[in-house]
Amino acid sequence: MNFLSTLDSPAAIINLPRMLHNIQLMQQRMDALDVRFRPHVKTSKCIPVVRAQIEAGAHGITVSTLKEAKYFFVDGITDILYAVGMAPGKLPQVLSLRRQGCDLKIISDSVASATAILDFGRAHGEAFEVWIEIDTDGHRSGIKPDDNALLEVAHVLHDGGMHLGGVMTHAGSSYGLDTEEALVAMAEQERSGCVRAAERVRAEGIPCPVVSVGSTPTALSARSLEGITEVRAGVYVFFDLVMHNIGVCEMNELAMSVLATVIGHRIEKGWAIIDAGWMALSRDRSTQKQKCDFGYGQVCDINGTVLRGYLLSDVNQEHGIVSYEGAPDKNIDQSFPVGTQLLILPNHACATAAQFPEYHLLSKDGGLVSWNRLYGW
Amino acid sequence: MNFLSTLDSPAAIINLPRMLHNIQLMQQRMDALDVRFRPHVKTSKCIPVVRAQIEAGAHGITVSTLKEAKYFFVDGITDILYAVGMAPGKLPQVLSLRRQGCDLKIISDSVASATAILDFGRAHGEAFEVWIEIDTDGHRSGIKPDDNALLEVAHVLHDGGMHLGGVMTHAGSSYGLDTEEALVAMAEQERSGCVRAAERVRAEGIPCPVVSVGSTPTALSARSLEGITEVRAGVYVFFDLVMHNIGVCEMNELAMSVLATVIGHRIEKGWAIIDAGWMALSRDRSTQKQKCDFGYGQVCDINGTVLRGYLLSDVNQEHGIVSYEGAPDKNIDQSFPVGTQLLILPNHACATAAQFPEYHLLSKDGGLVSWNRLYGW
Repeated sequence: MNFLSTLDSPAAIINLPRMLHNIQLMQQRMDALDVRFRPHVKTSKCIPVVRAQIEAGAHGITVSTLKEAKYFFVDGITDILYAVGMAPGKLPQVLSLRRQGCDLKIISDSVASATAILDFGRAHGEAFEVWIEIDTDGHRSGIKPDDNALLEVAHVLHDGGMHLGGVMTHAGSSYGLDTEEALVAMAEQERSGCVRAAERVRAEGIPCPVVSVGSTPTALSARSLEGITEVRAGVYVFFDLVMHNIGVCEMNELAMSVLATVIGHRIEKGWAIIDAGWMALSRDRSTQKQKCDFGYGQVCDINGTVLRGYLLSDVNQEHGIVSYEGAPDKNIDQSFPVGTQLLILPNHACATAAQFPEYHLLSKDGGLVSWNRLYGW
Repeated sequence: MNFLSTLDSPAAIINLPRMLHNIQLMQQRMDALDVRFRPHVKTSKCIPVVRAQIEAGAHGITVSTLKEAKYFFVDGITDILYAVGMAPGKLPQVLSLRRQGCDLKIISDSVASATAILDFGRAHGEAFEVWIEIDTDGHRSGIKPDDNALLEVAHVLHDGGMHLGGVMTHAGSSYGLDTEEALVAMAEQERSGCVRAAERVRAEGIPCPVVSVGSTPTALSARSLEGITEVRAGVYVFFDLVMHNIGVCEMNELAMSVLATVIGHRIEKGWAIIDAGWMALSRDRSTQKQKCDFGYGQVCDINGTVLRGYLLSDVNQEHGIVSYEGAPDKNIDQSFPVGTQLLILPNHACATAAQFPEYHLLSKDGGLVSWNRLYGW
């Protein structure tokens, strides 16, 4: 009997051997490239997952919220990078964590935010460790490597008595690529831009020890990481359909899926209705713009075997519609009778996992366990 | 000082006077149409919100998960409709709730699911109350009013000793309309189809006391509800940009928003970056197909004043991009300096609210309170 048959649906399921394989693969790659690895825990937000990453050799973690920082600090992790630009109103939380012994680093990409950090730090006698966010691909935040603002921010922080810990970048536009050539080029662009920024800061006589880059696609595509001290990546731990479309994982490396149950049919339309909608899968449709559009997810049987052509074609809050691409399956009530359990591979693991309070998995000793995950801010 | 300035962001904010206005408006309409009202609590999943709906005159509630049923039953509500087709594996939970005194009703739209309910009910000596789901608009689930399967399911349940409580439908395709004429016609189609189904069941000599219809757009558009005994609606309690585009609410009736803080800028692109991304707003882009595309949300100032033209144009996990429609605002760092707090009105209140563990609001006595909401399954 499949262990999943005892679970209520919808539920988030981790395939533990696949997850451990993904963790090993990334760590070995980073070791071979001679850089430290700092996983982004926003994907799993889960202590046992992050422990497995640390055990495999990761140095420190990256977080997307201060709640994550607190959660993992209480669990014993002290080396934490908060990789979202500082809202000045959150500085008291950062101060409190640092005063408790958390080696929490924050980021800035403007004179305005650096000045807010400096003013608060001085008022409270705290030399915050700040990394400057660099924009290497025009994707979102950051200062361009050759922009004068880089040196202005470096001087505001350094001259004001803050600790300029380094520079960091995230080539988020790698998510829009799907050829090895383009990915290798983007990884090199991310590397060279960040190294260039570090060199410019150092040329001012300001120490800039850390040079941090990363996204799952570039981390898995970089040929050289010369000048880089650490890499960050998150979604590689589970992978997902978006990463599969980009070309950095195989379908059988996807380690997280959603358990669902068939509750009805619209035979004339070739639909099976399942009890997992956007509340479970999320509204993420990121494969829509990629080379293969998986709708809201790829349908697999209860053993995880991919049922080619069957997609989660539409969702409402607690309803999902499974249909066959192209011609409707007019025998769908026989293909998937009421009560059939299915596994749905998600477009975006970070977004889907965020919908669940816990993961369910078969542990190494064969027991069914659940792992809590963090929720909210 | 605005009470929101003391809150960390992102946070889900309820405008209490607007919410109470929305509740009153719907209840008065239902009273005038002489039908009972059974709010769908999947929007708020929040006890104080649902208490306000009951106090205003609602009879019972509709839920989208059995976890909601348990949550509100523990709070004292017994008249509960679980309005998602039964997965047979969930019947033990339904049985347990009924044995504890919860008057929980379930739905079926096929002989297969009705038989599963019957078999389980007989095996455990329980006459489940089952409502038959009717399809009045081809939207998703249900049996068409004139389909013979309707009478087959009615006989399976009634003859087998279950309690056929009534028929119910949800004209979800009303979400695709935006003219009063089309909405009035859809409300009439929903009404007449459901009444027709009830009449066919009754003509078989099978009692069919409840005739239940509803969606927020049709509930607010129906001219007559002859033959209908109750109406269900959910999102009206908060309203959202989708409902505004449909034409059933004004912008100043939207009662839920997301508090966010400006963390940076890309001046050359006219972007302000905020600390609220899809983790806070959800990935819902339902206004994309409507007459006005609001991106991921409409930007308002901290007092709730709509800043026309400023939209949340893109989101990542914890980052949102605020930009001006049309020409970039090249002074956006002065329009919204780092640290500026904003309120974002969401496309879809159900999806956005689901991202938060709690709501924050100014209570009637002027105090800042938070209301927990239910999470997961």
